[in-house]
Amino acid sequence: MKTLREALADADARQAAIGHFNISEFGALKGIMDGARELSAAHGGDKLPILIGVSEGEREFLGVKEAAAMVRAMRDMFDYPVYINADHTHSIDKVREVAEAGFDEIIFDASKLPFEENLAQTKEAVALARSINPAIVIEGEIGYIGSSSEIVSERPQESMKYSTPDEAARFVRETGVDVLAPAVGNMHGLLKSMVTGEDHKKLDIALIGEIKKAIGGAGCRFMTLHGGSGTADEDFVAAAKNGMTIIHVSSELRLAWRQGMERSLKDQPDEIAPYKLLGPSVEHIKNIVSGRLRLFNGI
Amino acid sequence: MKTLREALADADARQAAIGHFNISEFGALKGIMDGARELSAAHGGDKLPILIGVSEGEREFLGVKEAAAMVRAMRDMFDYPVYINADHTHSIDKVREVAEAGFDEIIFDASKLPFEENLAQTKEAVALARSINPAIVIEGEIGYIGSSSEIVSERPQESMKYSTPDEAARFVRETGVDVLAPAVGNMHGLLKSMVTGEDHKKLDIALIGEIKKAIGGAGCRFMTLHGGSGTADEDFVAAAKNGMTIIHVSSELRLAWRQGMERSLKDQPDEIAPYKLLGPSVEHIKNIVSGRLRLFNGI
Repeated sequence: MKTLREALADADARQAAIGHFNISEFGALKGIMDGARELSAAHGGDKLPILIGVSEGEREFLGVKEAAAMVRAMRDMFDYPVYINADHTHSIDKVREVAEAGFDEIIFDASKLPFEENLAQTKEAVALARSINPAIVIEGEIGYIGSSSEIVSERPQESMKYSTPDEAARFVRETGVDVLAPAVGNMHGLLKSMVTGEDHKKLDIALIGEIKKAIGGAGCRFMTLHGGSGTADEDFVAAAKNGMTIIHVSSELRLAWRQGMERSLKDQPDEIAPYKLLGPSVEHIKNIVSGRLRLFNGI
Repeated sequence: MKTLREALADADARQAAIGHFNISEFGALKGIMDGARELSAAHGGDKLPILIGVSEGEREFLGVKEAAAMVRAMRDMFDYPVYINADHTHSIDKVREVAEAGFDEIIFDASKLPFEENLAQTKEAVALARSINPAIVIEGEIGYIGSSSEIVSERPQESMKYSTPDEAARFVRETGVDVLAPAVGNMHGLLKSMVTGEDHKKLDIALIGEIKKAIGGAGCRFMTLHGGSGTADEDFVAAAKNGMTIIHVSSELRLAWRQGMERSLKDQPDEIAPYKLLGPSVEHIKNIVSGRLRLFNGI
């Protein structure tokens, strides 16, 4: 099995992106695994690596060790390259906790703070994480793109602050992060108009290419697109081709989970077994994941 | 940490029963752990052992290894005596699978077959399970009490075949099971009248005592009450005092899960995070588990 670092290098060489999907319970994990495994099998047996993300809120519900154990069990059982990421980790104490629990990646996110402060805190997080596990992949974030995977009425104003190649280069040089998450038109959550499919997020593809080049010159090879849910298909494809090595999708899966559950409770009025009621959500998530992975991997 | 066998011996000596609760996703496991841990803490710190059950259907959804990993993670994280049982395992191949996956207990259930055939198959299952893991606890079942943890309109007719002390003694002597599950008025699932609380299952407490004595003479110390959901409180207390070492509750938790989810979707129309939508189900399950454990442990 490749390490996450090797899987990232491989994706970067293929101009593809690793799909990153969030979970807070078992049905979503099952749907994600099913979608990735079925697409990989249909695609000729190459196993497409995926990342499972758990934010601080999701970790609080699942438990840090339980989340790591669940993903590890999936990796072992299916001999599948699935890795676990501590999504949006905001404190040094939580960096220590997840590094000690054996997570493959940590996103240290101080992006709400002024740039200089973000830089200083991220540098400290990198040093701590590597002192616990030298192999860990650590990501930093610049720019602000909203904060939660929810349905929102309006685009947060701050999300319009796009990252610049210069600040990106300086950030990766001074912090030493393995991966950078810039603001390039992406945002967390979904607008109501995106739920119906009438509206999509648009990315600045040229800026993605410029930032990729700038950070490459500063010794950082990998880049992540956060808040991918609701992005136009062609922008997903172009983002992967132009330098994004990881793409996050969370809100779309959450919405599918809720919609599947609503349908289940309506269609199966006497059913009480959770695993039967979760069936439609799992199926719905599976289909989204396999569709997104096609775009991220140019399939 | 005590082994399950030691925890059973300890419960037997206390005339208490270990609570056995089924799961098929993470929210129920969380609610069960919360209920057991809170009651244990309130009760002065003695950690009340519990069993997590996964039936064949539940295992198919969760994955055999994932279920074992999730329960093991809970045991390690909370340093809590929580064990995993392969509930109602119907074939020799599945006995092998769960024994190899490190389950603490297996219920081999051929109780739908004629008595002699049930006896022969159970004997084979005991030999196989012990050849893989000599420490495993293996349970056999006699009599038929219905088959699924669902809401049903009528009591299944076959459930009226109560077990006799003689057949119980012969069964444990010839199969060598560690634990016997007899039919003593219990049944799987809940009648519609039990959902509203107007009706309860009634157990034959005298028969429980007689069977316990008969199997004790044949070298078997432990006994399980299946289909406990909806049993009258005083019968739960009397069942534990008169020889039941394990009591199963599943349908009540499933119903709580569904009712919690219905309330969530109604009360939180814009929420999409599964862990937030699962909150009321987890809370409801926690309260049922702690209430049932009080009765089973005479607290």
